[in-house]
Amino acid sequence: MPASYAYLGPEGTFTEVALRTLPEAATRELIPYVSVQSALDAVRNGEAEAAFVPIENSVEGGVTTTLDELVAGKPLMIYREVLLSITFALLVRPGTKLSEIKTVTAHPVAQPQVRNWLRAHLPDALWESAASNADGARLVQEGRYDAAFAGEFAAERYGLEALETGIHDAENAQTRFVLVGRPARPAAPTGADKTSVVLWQNDDHPGGLRDLLGEFATRGINLMLLQSRPTGAGIGNYCFCIDAEGHISDRRVAEALMGLKRICRQVRFLGSYPRADVEPGETVGPTLPGTSDEEFVAASDWVARCQDGRF
Amino acid sequence: MPASYAYLGPEGTFTEVALRTLPEAATRELIPYVSVQSALDAVRNGEAEAAFVPIENSVEGGVTTTLDELVAGKPLMIYREVLLSITFALLVRPGTKLSEIKTVTAHPVAQPQVRNWLRAHLPDALWESAASNADGARLVQEGRYDAAFAGEFAAERYGLEALETGIHDAENAQTRFVLVGRPARPAAPTGADKTSVVLWQNDDHPGGLRDLLGEFATRGINLMLLQSRPTGAGIGNYCFCIDAEGHISDRRVAEALMGLKRICRQVRFLGSYPRADVEPGETVGPTLPGTSDEEFVAASDWVARCQDGRF
Amino acid sequence: MPASYAYLGPEGTFTEVALRTLPEAATRELIPYVSVQSALDAVRNGEAEAAFVPIENSVEGGVTTTLDELVAGKPLMIYREVLLSITFALLVRPGTKLSEIKTVTAHPVAQPQVRNWLRAHLPDALWESAASNADGARLVQEGRYDAAFAGEFAAERYGLEALETGIHDAENAQTRFVLVGRPARPAAPTGADKTSVVLWQNDDHPGGLRDLLGEFATRGINLMLLQSRPTGAGIGNYCFCIDAEGHISDRRVAEALMGLKRICRQVRFLGSYPRADVEPGETVGPTLPGTSDEEFVAASDWVARCQDGRF
Amino acid sequence: MPASYAYLGPEGTFTEVALRTLPEAATRELIPYVSVQSALDAVRNGEAEAAFVPIENSVEGGVTTTLDELVAGKPLMIYREVLLSITFALLVRPGTKLSEIKTVTAHPVAQPQVRNWLRAHLPDALWESAASNADGARLVQEGRYDAAFAGEFAAERYGLEALETGIHDAENAQTRFVLVGRPARPAAPTGADKTSVVLWQNDDHPGGLRDLLGEFATRGINLMLLQSRPTGAGIGNYCFCIDAEGHISDRRVAEALMGLKRICRQVRFLGSYPRADVEPGETVGPTLPGTSDEEFVAASDWVARCQDGRF
Repeated sequence: MPASYAYLGPEGTFTEVALRTLPEAATRELIPYVSVQSALDAVRNGEAEAAFVPIENSVEGGVTTTLDELVAGKPLMIYREVLLSITFALLVRPGTKLSEIKTVTAHPVAQPQVRNWLRAHLPDALWESAASNADGARLVQEGRYDAAFAGEFAAERYGLEALETGIHDAENAQTRFVLVGRPARPAAPTGADKTSVVLWQNDDHPGGLRDLLGEFATRGINLMLLQSRPTGAGIGNYCFCIDAEGHISDRRVAEALMGLKRICRQVRFLGSYPRADVEPGETVGPTLPGTSDEEFVAASDWVARCQDGRF
Repeated sequence: MPASYAYLGPEGTFTEVALRTLPEAATRELIPYVSVQSALDAVRNGEAEAAFVPIENSVEGGVTTTLDELVAGKPLMIYREVLLSITFALLVRPGTKLSEIKTVTAHPVAQPQVRNWLRAHLPDALWESAASNADGARLVQEGRYDAAFAGEFAAERYGLEALETGIHDAENAQTRFVLVGRPARPAAPTGADKTSVVLWQNDDHPGGLRDLLGEFATRGINLMLLQSRPTGAGIGNYCFCIDAEGHISDRRVAEALMGLKRICRQVRFLGSYPRADVEPGETVGPTLPGTSDEEFVAASDWVARCQDGRF
Repeated sequence: MPASYAYLGPEGTFTEVALRTLPEAATRELIPYVSVQSALDAVRNGEAEAAFVPIENSVEGGVTTTLDELVAGKPLMIYREVLLSITFALLVRPGTKLSEIKTVTAHPVAQPQVRNWLRAHLPDALWESAASNADGARLVQEGRYDAAFAGEFAAERYGLEALETGIHDAENAQTRFVLVGRPARPAAPTGADKTSVVLWQNDDHPGGLRDLLGEFATRGINLMLLQSRPTGAGIGNYCFCIDAEGHISDRRVAEALMGLKRICRQVRFLGSYPRADVEPGETVGPTLPGTSDEEFVAASDWVARCQDGRF
Repeated sequence: MPASYAYLGPEGTFTEVALRTLPEAATRELIPYVSVQSALDAVRNGEAEAAFVPIENSVEGGVTTTLDELVAGKPLMIYREVLLSITFALLVRPGTKLSEIKTVTAHPVAQPQVRNWLRAHLPDALWESAASNADGARLVQEGRYDAAFAGEFAAERYGLEALETGIHDAENAQTRFVLVGRPARPAAPTGADKTSVVLWQNDDHPGGLRDLLGEFATRGINLMLLQSRPTGAGIGNYCFCIDAEGHISDRRVAEALMGLKRICRQVRFLGSYPRADVEPGETVGPTLPGTSDEEFVAASDWVARCQDGRF
């Protein structure tokens, strides 16, 4: 059986484009799934080696479907991340003019990214959501809608033409994708890594969350994402998805995770993996004095010598 | 002109039901709007006195559309909140049997709340999103889909029948709604209030967020919501929507807000209003020693006496 | 009645020399007292306008007699501080040779400051304590001891000669003196001031002292002295004498003191006064962002506007 | 050579009484030394196995001579502590009446402990300091002073009688003594231990000391002593002698010490030893959730499993 990667389909979406930037994707069979849930289930039940799904974007924040799937159920682990700049093309059937567009479609996540453009250029067009941007393009092809926002690369596949390209409300619009697999030994640290965890507070008291964040802060660990997600125990009950600087094999990160494990009701480790926002080869070391591996090792040695009476 | 409240329509949704629990709603004209954005715009441009929109639910967390609208643009203020327990009915055209249902619809927010039920009872049904739960019911009425998840109260309006009621994946499924108006003097404290703010960090350094939360924690102020939202400045850039215990006229809350104002790049005040999760008349005082209004006043008096040499 | 300053006598000590550096000393009658206690009692009972006593030195740390007197009893206030570099002369009766010295004396506080010199030059000399350095010189004059450590200025008064000068074990040996009076409005801030307080913790729990210091730290206030003193309630029970940067009329200092007042069992204000270690005219502003008076005022104004609905 | 303990002499002081409460003292030769410094030097140069000296008392706080000796020079280690309740007797030559006492003497440390008694009963008596309380008794025997404050046990040795006993200004007056030896493996934990360290801050910034104390606080470790001592680098430069709950072999203590080692310029370990204020057999466990050895071990195991991909 050839190793396969599941991904959030259909074909022709930004997800597929992002996935193909991974060298290892060239050697796998890439299989589209209809939802994040089904793609991750394929990993959980052994159908796929890993799944590739969006997890964060610069306009909508954390992708809650993905986060909720990672937070609950059989443990999974993030192996890799990919950053992709997102700009939309307005795809129409060949010959359609802007003035003829009455209905537009795309995945709901696209909407806030094209909202201003729509207001300025198609203020009266009716928006309807599609299951994916590619599916929106297909529906345009079938004549159900007049135009779809999608990646320019989708035009060819669906016999459409791009009436406009480079549409994005926000500068630097990016989506972050992750390759998710079953628990395994994390990839070796590269010097510029990221660690993802989910934290459930032990109880709810003033300062509880502050103390959790203190486990990172006192060890000089920057946070890159803090996304609260409902625990399902009723309104106001949240767990926290956190992306932190560093690798679980870094002493400062390991000690922070131990601290969290001790004071949290539950901690779920979601993986340590190379940062996609740093050039390969570049390293991002700890900047707070006293938090390098060398200093941790020296301190640990010193305590051991004191325990032995050799000081 | 009669005073009017805008609300997220269409008619016959949970939002309308929640709005009608407010006594003041009886004396206003209630006008449905097609989106949170348009409802809030109606307030901003003076068309409506206030707007009533969902802001948080126990399954999906913060309602990002609403939060994003409050975070940016002309300042608005939360006047009131309402909590509503949410259970769905499966609405069909009279006579439809469960086994005949091939397609189901509802607002995307409903999906995670009925996901398990769907898996168990209609594993093969195709889900398509509707603009609202009421709109989904309408589309069933029109024959476009076989069934819609919506509030039971929507059945009559659309000539449907409830094949099943009380559907909810999570126990205690609730949605929190807010009545939003233009900036005004907040309602007087009731003894059980909540204060909403948005915080933008000054810069990104280890411990930055921990220090922001410390302004609440050191004054014994519990947090009820912490929802990160992208600032639009690129992936990884977030502001934080926070609901905190207490009223801006409480000394401890006022001092915490002052502290945040001093160390944040920006703070947006979103209002102080009575908590809907506490019975009217019940009070929820500060529990940390040294954080009552009396203690703040006594400390302030003492410092003034020291400054005057009278100690 | 001419205004008078009490000081720790006898005449001819470092204390008197330090006192005479104060311009206002020229217009007062300067009266030596036999002990710190009696000098401060003279202030408390109205005999003297103020008292001048040592409070800290670079070799012995806080002068516990002075601190204990300020901590308890009728409230007093520090008006001014003076820093004096301390070097000792070895005073002998004229003609005495180093080799003839069998006994040396001085105030006990002098001992650690000349200990190394003694070990090197007079390893066999017997040390006996004197009530003051000047008294030691007097006892040498009377023939009771062979040599006394004292300020060189004491030689003439007691008909002695300095066999050696410039004796000091530690570089930068300095003593800090304070002018102490009855509670009054503190001197106006100079831009480089210091505030002294005594803190009694509310109870003894892990982190208690850390939290007290947090009131200073979160407002960017440096500490210059932290000296624990027994409360008298049994071993292990301490209060804390603290010298902090800034003036009680600085917003950040006032708010820190309010915070301490709220969480401590007791706080005693000991005064705000110009720093002697900073050149007159030089200012030492807050360095932590968000802690200047302007930022405090702006934050306070903002909260007031929010409370009024004008934002 | 029989093993010997040096102690702060002369014979007949509270120090000797306290030392004799140690069972092991019965099997050693006990040798009085004239000063804390000389007793500790005897240990450092191998003359004595250990030295017994006072380190803290309930009236004067930390005994600075002892602390300064432990802070500097060749490393030493505290093996044991002893608590002794201190009350004084007023010793006179047989037949002396209270009204005949013109001069009194004792070690300077005794003075604050009898100050109020003196004011009430011998307001006109002249105080002169003695090198030790026992030495004061000897000087009374020799007729140099009329009365000495000393332990009642000293009366017999010097042929004096106790005119009054049980003199102590403060209730619960106690002195804490320590048995100090060369570095060695600390005694096994008893369940109620104490760890002593000296900390030198890395630099002087707002919050520096707060952060040091945070290493203890976040691990639920109570402090029993915090005594600042001058570093010798000039006024305002202090190191901190700290006694903390727990044993260096406790995980929470070891991790706190590692944290301090990483962020301090220097840390000196002074030993882990049984608490004298807790009954033998009684244990004083960690009270903060998440700080027991079991929880540390479990957290460490969990991180190791995550590092291995077994979670």
